[in-house]
Amino acid sequence: MQALLFDGTSARVVDRPTPEPAADGALVRVTLAGICNTDLELVKGYMGFRGVLGHEFVGVVEAGPAAWRGQRVVGEINFACGRCATCARGLGRHCPTRRVMGILDADGSFAEHVAVPVRNLHAVPDGVTDEAAVFTEPLAAACEILEQVHVTPSTDCIVLGDGKLGLLVAQVLHHAGARVLAVGKHAAKLALLRRRGISTVTPGEWNGTPADLVVEATGSAAGLSAAVAATKPRGTLVLKSTVADAVPINLAPVVINEITVVGSRCGSFAPALRALETASVDVTSLISATRPLRDGVDALRQAAGPGVLKVLLRP
Amino acid sequence: MQALLFDGTSARVVDRPTPEPAADGALVRVTLAGICNTDLELVKGYMGFRGVLGHEFVGVVEAGPAAWRGQRVVGEINFACGRCATCARGLGRHCPTRRVMGILDADGSFAEHVAVPVRNLHAVPDGVTDEAAVFTEPLAAACEILEQVHVTPSTDCIVLGDGKLGLLVAQVLHHAGARVLAVGKHAAKLALLRRRGISTVTPGEWNGTPADLVVEATGSAAGLSAAVAATKPRGTLVLKSTVADAVPINLAPVVINEITVVGSRCGSFAPALRALETASVDVTSLISATRPLRDGVDALRQAAGPGVLKVLLRP
Repeated sequence: MQALLFDGTSARVVDRPTPEPAADGALVRVTLAGICNTDLELVKGYMGFRGVLGHEFVGVVEAGPAAWRGQRVVGEINFACGRCATCARGLGRHCPTRRVMGILDADGSFAEHVAVPVRNLHAVPDGVTDEAAVFTEPLAAACEILEQVHVTPSTDCIVLGDGKLGLLVAQVLHHAGARVLAVGKHAAKLALLRRRGISTVTPGEWNGTPADLVVEATGSAAGLSAAVAATKPRGTLVLKSTVADAVPINLAPVVINEITVVGSRCGSFAPALRALETASVDVTSLISATRPLRDGVDALRQAAGPGVLKVLLRP
Repeated sequence: MQALLFDGTSARVVDRPTPEPAADGALVRVTLAGICNTDLELVKGYMGFRGVLGHEFVGVVEAGPAAWRGQRVVGEINFACGRCATCARGLGRHCPTRRVMGILDADGSFAEHVAVPVRNLHAVPDGVTDEAAVFTEPLAAACEILEQVHVTPSTDCIVLGDGKLGLLVAQVLHHAGARVLAVGKHAAKLALLRRRGISTVTPGEWNGTPADLVVEATGSAAGLSAAVAATKPRGTLVLKSTVADAVPINLAPVVINEITVVGSRCGSFAPALRALETASVDVTSLISATRPLRDGVDALRQAAGPGVLKVLLRP
């Protein structure tokens, strides 16, 4: 099969054997896959990953338990052991021996086929198109904030960053009833939010008034000091950016203002699929391009360009 | 009156006019005052403070409302405006125009007298000695953790640092019923905790097993990476050290392990006074020396020495 492989030095489209799913696994024929900023970090060396890239996908089960065969699916990306103390606490996404699709010790979805543990699969509701379903994973990551922080209709929120994740986070918080101000540099991206009734400003327009809840989704650790300054005393700052660099940070304001900083990564797929089914979040407006998998290397380059949102790959 | 003044360059004992309390204030004759690590940071330039140092004290009200005159008191250190939106939320300790005794725009307690707003005063219960009452402020800062984090008898805690604050925090968490492991470098300091039934290890002995709740009380921002590594996935890391330096930190583990980092500063005095009254926390074992105020400059030097815990000043 065709696959977009990262060998530790460069990414290229290669011919690979179709994966053999494990006894508890399914073989999924990938219909669409999405490029995430994490993929762009991985090809710069983040996590030391080598293998087939990709962790966002929608596809159809080709082999596995009879109940799943022919089913249109998306798949959670953390492959947990299911037997350790962390898994027993319901925290399989934090299983210390987990593999992570396209990120850690497991081949990913930028391929014609991907092997996924059956317990990670979720059926895609009929009303959700492939173009929407492929956003399940990043949307789940946005919904994760609601699992970690008590967001109420009185919560003033600032979302820093108008990249893919920032746009999803702003919509999720808005739909949860909170008052959201999105701060971003790109007029076209912010316009997507304004169409949903969400307030937006550019950094130059922003008056800097701090908020109860700030979400750092700029993708740059350098933005952290600004994010701390944007958080009210006793407020909460959610970090969504995974970046590999160590940056100098003065933590005194976190202590003096008693700010709570919440690291936030992956989320459950079920709430994200419900949000897609009810169209409470607009995801398809975020699609900048759909490219054939054979153009995967150029698609990665395109996804890294300024102003570009989601680039999809079609095997 | 005699007072230990920091003029922005050096600290020295000077003769100053006795302060005039404001209309809502009281004049307190200081009986004992405690040197905190923050004082040692202030004389290195932290906060840009100039004035009389000191924010830990016990004393007797000499002038002010009749109901308070002659009363033995301690005093909360944040002088809030009482009129802004932050104060209205009950967060006077975070009032944006607050002055802070001996730290920000207000003279402190290393003096024969200190002026304190009456609403900041707390009467000291009869059973609490001056030597214990002078610990109310740092003990309140330790108790603040219980206000911010839900600590239960099943909570595994690691306290990093066996300085004054670390020793108070370990005792507060232990008394709250949690399982506490204190990690520190000084055998004599750790022995104080073992006498209270608290487990201790040196960094060399420690097996590094992560815990649900980690308190960073080393007084060094450089310890943050170790503190993050000591926190379980989805666990909580409380930062108690206010240090002025920006240090390089890789925040990826905070995001990947979805750690909650809680900045923690001052606390309410009432729970601390109750803990002193019931002797649930041993504070007087932390006294390394009691020096006359006139030796204040040398006392600051002594307090900065290795292995030294609380140095008290007696005007």
